[in-house]
Amino acid sequence: MTAFEKIIRHFERFPGIGSRQAKRFAFHLLTLDQSDLTELAELIRTIRTNVIVCPSCARFHSLQSPDRNCSVCGSTMRDRSKLTVVERDTDIDAIERSGVYDGLYFVLGGTVPLLDSQDVKRLRGGMLKQIVETRVTEGLKEIILGFSVNPDGENTGRYIETLLREQIEKNALKISHLGRGLSTGSELEYADPETIKNALKNRS
Amino acid sequence: MTAFEKIIRHFERFPGIGSRQAKRFAFHLLTLDQSDLTELAELIRTIRTNVIVCPSCARFHSLQSPDRNCSVCGSTMRDRSKLTVVERDTDIDAIERSGVYDGLYFVLGGTVPLLDSQDVKRLRGGMLKQIVETRVTEGLKEIILGFSVNPDGENTGRYIETLLREQIEKNALKISHLGRGLSTGSELEYADPETIKNALKNRS
Amino acid sequence: MTAFEKIIRHFERFPGIGSRQAKRFAFHLLTLDQSDLTELAELIRTIRTNVIVCPSCARFHSLQSPDRNCSVCGSTMRDRSKLTVVERDTDIDAIERSGVYDGLYFVLGGTVPLLDSQDVKRLRGGMLKQIVETRVTEGLKEIILGFSVNPDGENTGRYIETLLREQIEKNALKISHLGRGLSTGSELEYADPETIKNALKNRS
Amino acid sequence: MTAFEKIIRHFERFPGIGSRQAKRFAFHLLTLDQSDLTELAELIRTIRTNVIVCPSCARFHSLQSPDRNCSVCGSTMRDRSKLTVVERDTDIDAIERSGVYDGLYFVLGGTVPLLDSQDVKRLRGGMLKQIVETRVTEGLKEIILGFSVNPDGENTGRYIETLLREQIEKNALKISHLGRGLSTGSELEYADPETIKNALKNRS
Repeated sequence: MTAFEKIIRHFERFPGIGSRQAKRFAFHLLTLDQSDLTELAELIRTIRTNVIVCPSCARFHSLQSPDRNCSVCGSTMRDRSKLTVVERDTDIDAIERSGVYDGLYFVLGGTVPLLDSQDVKRLRGGMLKQIVETRVTEGLKEIILGFSVNPDGENTGRYIETLLREQIEKNALKISHLGRGLSTGSELEYADPETIKNALKNRS
Repeated sequence: MTAFEKIIRHFERFPGIGSRQAKRFAFHLLTLDQSDLTELAELIRTIRTNVIVCPSCARFHSLQSPDRNCSVCGSTMRDRSKLTVVERDTDIDAIERSGVYDGLYFVLGGTVPLLDSQDVKRLRGGMLKQIVETRVTEGLKEIILGFSVNPDGENTGRYIETLLREQIEKNALKISHLGRGLSTGSELEYADPETIKNALKNRS
Repeated sequence: MTAFEKIIRHFERFPGIGSRQAKRFAFHLLTLDQSDLTELAELIRTIRTNVIVCPSCARFHSLQSPDRNCSVCGSTMRDRSKLTVVERDTDIDAIERSGVYDGLYFVLGGTVPLLDSQDVKRLRGGMLKQIVETRVTEGLKEIILGFSVNPDGENTGRYIETLLREQIEKNALKISHLGRGLSTGSELEYADPETIKNALKNRS
Repeated sequence: MTAFEKIIRHFERFPGIGSRQAKRFAFHLLTLDQSDLTELAELIRTIRTNVIVCPSCARFHSLQSPDRNCSVCGSTMRDRSKLTVVERDTDIDAIERSGVYDGLYFVLGGTVPLLDSQDVKRLRGGMLKQIVETRVTEGLKEIILGFSVNPDGENTGRYIETLLREQIEKNALKISHLGRGLSTGSELEYADPETIKNALKNRS
């Protein structure tokens, strides 16, 4: 296998990339200056040392703080009574963009698929239990299940409720789900009964 | 123009139908038995006598009641304190499928587009005012704006609020909007800030 | 079942129409004037008497000629040495739009699917044999297989060749296939090997 | 800008990649072993030394031949009387997959868009003229315009004809276009008139 074929093979493993686009990526590299190639290569080689996993919420970040905490977990301005558990780093970005949440986060690292529940080992369930233990001493009152509204997201919510049951009861924590209703762009005619039910219930 | 071309011309005016599909419809008719053709022709010829416009909510129906009211408006089981204003007949079907609404409806007959507001004349604003006048005597307390979550739907909501302002104030009616949040199938990562804001606000 | 539901049921049998669009069609009818409804109903009721099947090519048409022939089969300007066999009436329209074919047609009435070959009974194979017999006395030299370039189209081509084998041999008829190559909009990079092979072979 | 943001910025410049997918790529890298990261980095850093531009056809390749020619240009088995000019490297792959072409290639490096013709400077027009000069001494007889069947592809064909006019006349070279017709999967009913015209002309 030539170097060119090897690089295509690497790109084919990128999420959502087929063999044709992998080849395009390789051709794209050939159009770059050597200085760009050298910089990209160096960034890739050192990504694991430059990117830090926050010990409090498990998200990736690059903030060089002494305790390795990310900007949210290290902030004194966030409301420590709320902890939102999400699937992925990018979910935090989406919530932060909404500009209305001032609590903390925890990145579970994936969902618990309905049909393949042994994937649970790959998730950060144990770390979540420990973090909740600590956060309780800091005033944690509510755990928000920040998952997608689909079977896997709902199953993951149930997993978290089971995982944390003892801690929830002992500390009288509130577990809450994101509100459901019509999302931006929803047309009433095409909305499913569950969505309409919630849209009527949450009317204001 | 031949009879065949004339029929294609009729089908081309059907919603969402282009010339190619109109032609397919005409060819489809040629494959039907004469008894089916005669039945379909008779149903089309008499549709306006067989289909009744409900004098209370303006929806189309076929219930042969003495006062021409539809099954919802004629029912004694519905909660007359609530009136949901919708754009189209099919929106009523969607809400009824959710099985949680027991109030009344009114079909406005369209939206008030942001960019072309003179379409307002085609809507049943005048009839709505009259119906609200009557419904108030029957105990109406709340008007629910059952419109899609998009610019035209929001503009139509503002139109209704303006249209009914006096009646709302005089009778202390509540105006409510359908609740917003994550709809079924929504993925957090792709949700817009407004939807996430509402999902957090309406969490439970 | 109400008249309104019956009419929706009819529209649901139209090609490519689901229950939601069938309902839209019914609501559309309600917006029409009674004169339009009466005209459409009459056109549908009489479509089978107003539309004629050409006895020479089997296409539907409305030309009231004494011998019931369509405008192509009845024309003295068409080249009777060529006969193109197509699947559907609409294929004739597509070929006529190209403006370069001056021969005759025959509408087979469908394809012979690779996987369900008993559908052959519904096709007009017997009529085609008879027509070829007649056309030979008028100077027929070439039969063009005007089918789509897909497995069913190719299988239909083979079916015609087998069906007409004796007549082809006895009368030394030429059987030809439509030329293959890059079609309008084709991008070389995405073209399949068979298409490129033909594009190279037919280069000019 | 952090290292993580820098790497996302690089991926955003990859063809067809938006900011969301660029971020996914960065997260994907974080899931890789350091050995994979190191290998990928090294392949990217050295891609320009490992990938060679063929001096005869301008395609990228990795064959370490003394004269830096690619496997096609360096082969004694190819028919040197034919030269196909294509837009991109990947077009050569598509033609080679068809298995019927045994001539030579030249990669122009892009098209001449109808609306923005000053892009011509970026193409390898000058190099093509030189290569044709050399190929003529080796027996070149035909130049095949291997471009897509769309306005840009056709405009590029006209550009090549103008560019090489003198050489074509002086050496009596034949210029040919790829054959047009129905491509695999084409349905007659949806084919445009130009495609049907060619399908009838090239019937066989």
